[in-house]
Amino acid sequence: MVTPFHDRLRSVWRTAGSLLCVGLDVDPRLVPPGVTERPDWISQFVLDIVEATRDLVCAYKPNIAFYEALGLDGYQGLRKILDGLPRDVVVIGDVKRGDIGNTASAYATAMFDGWGFDAITVSPLMGRDSLDPFLARPDRGAFVLCKTSNPGSADFLDRNVDGEPLYELIARRCVEWDERSNVGLVVGATFPPQLERVRALAPNLPILVPGVGSQQGDLAAAVRAGVDAAGEGILVSASRSVMFASRGSDWRDAARRSAMALRDEIDAARARSAV
Amino acid sequence: MVTPFHDRLRSVWRTAGSLLCVGLDVDPRLVPPGVTERPDWISQFVLDIVEATRDLVCAYKPNIAFYEALGLDGYQGLRKILDGLPRDVVVIGDVKRGDIGNTASAYATAMFDGWGFDAITVSPLMGRDSLDPFLARPDRGAFVLCKTSNPGSADFLDRNVDGEPLYELIARRCVEWDERSNVGLVVGATFPPQLERVRALAPNLPILVPGVGSQQGDLAAAVRAGVDAAGEGILVSASRSVMFASRGSDWRDAARRSAMALRDEIDAARARSAV
Repeated sequence: MVTPFHDRLRSVWRTAGSLLCVGLDVDPRLVPPGVTERPDWISQFVLDIVEATRDLVCAYKPNIAFYEALGLDGYQGLRKILDGLPRDVVVIGDVKRGDIGNTASAYATAMFDGWGFDAITVSPLMGRDSLDPFLARPDRGAFVLCKTSNPGSADFLDRNVDGEPLYELIARRCVEWDERSNVGLVVGATFPPQLERVRALAPNLPILVPGVGSQQGDLAAAVRAGVDAAGEGILVSASRSVMFASRGSDWRDAARRSAMALRDEIDAARARSAV
Repeated sequence: MVTPFHDRLRSVWRTAGSLLCVGLDVDPRLVPPGVTERPDWISQFVLDIVEATRDLVCAYKPNIAFYEALGLDGYQGLRKILDGLPRDVVVIGDVKRGDIGNTASAYATAMFDGWGFDAITVSPLMGRDSLDPFLARPDRGAFVLCKTSNPGSADFLDRNVDGEPLYELIARRCVEWDERSNVGLVVGATFPPQLERVRALAPNLPILVPGVGSQQGDLAAAVRAGVDAAGEGILVSASRSVMFASRGSDWRDAARRSAMALRDEIDAARARSAV
């Protein structure tokens, strides 16, 4: 019996007691001095960050771009990281894939069977049929780009489509397309009013909320705008502000302190929104 | 002195005397019997297809999804393929990437420096700033998804945005964003009227036209709709109908015959459109 992705996520939110997702975006220009001199430094560094934060998070989210930029070392490092991640958290591949049917099937194979991600981020630009291969498995999630955290998301996603912004149309379509309890949305913490609107349109979909930390999203406002009726429903994602919290020898402790502060800030905002 | 991508492409169209692009989408379920038993079969098979077609094409276009689906073997195979491709054609990585700024920079590094593609396909969904890292190098091209060949492209790309379809808005924006003579568009051969409209809006941008062959696009209509004032301006892309033209022992010859027929059909349509 397969557990639908939404049920898995809800269970993890409760056992972890955290809505924090830490992005595992390895960047050789940002790691503390000396780190890149260790053998297998990519997986060693990232798994040290994981070790320092694992009791504070509900999910980890490697963005595959940073591993692709490191070539074969990056792929091999990502393999070791995924093999070393704890099984009781959700692992989201931030891959933003999307292509026509047979090609999307190949990506689904690569991401779900090859890498073994529990969920991935996907682009809806090419339409429903381009997403079908990602939505076919109830136990694997697909977080659909809806209103991304960058300023440029205004260029198309905010544009008015027959009376509503494109991001709202995407949210409404995703509610229709969620036939297997495995569809999520991506809405940046940098846009709390839009996040509130998406939550109203999609009361039951999990929302991945990047853009806190380095991108300066208003964390408390985003949490209040994004939580569902149960005070859950969001994965608040921070990457650089945790992984690269310090360039000193205290980088493990600094990552932990940063993650703990975020988790607590999320919880404080949840508590206020529940009042 | 760097040659802008548009100039490179125009030069290749003329020396190759062909507007045909062959997609190198390796698929173990479709290759002829016995092929997967050869050592290094991925690169051996694909480079045999290249050898059989290299005088007939202006470009090759591996879709990276098929290599990612093969895991580490796929990555190593793609590396050997890219190292073995002739230098006098354009190599387009069909990767459909797009992400926020620092992540898009990582993808640009992976695709242009790591794999070494001359050009890639990119998704405009997240807006201009998500494309900037792909547009920064005059000698490297970015083909922006505009109106894709699949039926689902109607879901969002055809929707009316303040009086025009989204795909037309994307085409117009790309004309504005083409500051370095390196922006192209992707429009499916399955939609000749839309291709004609995009050509009118973007008279000088190269257009990658997938969807002939297996996807049954109307090749002649697409060529007539897509060519620019010089009778060039398009890369007509076929993948499965060339690579998997035969499952018999004649697969090399069959690939060549299929590619030659496509090149000649394109040329015939160009000649008619020039009358």
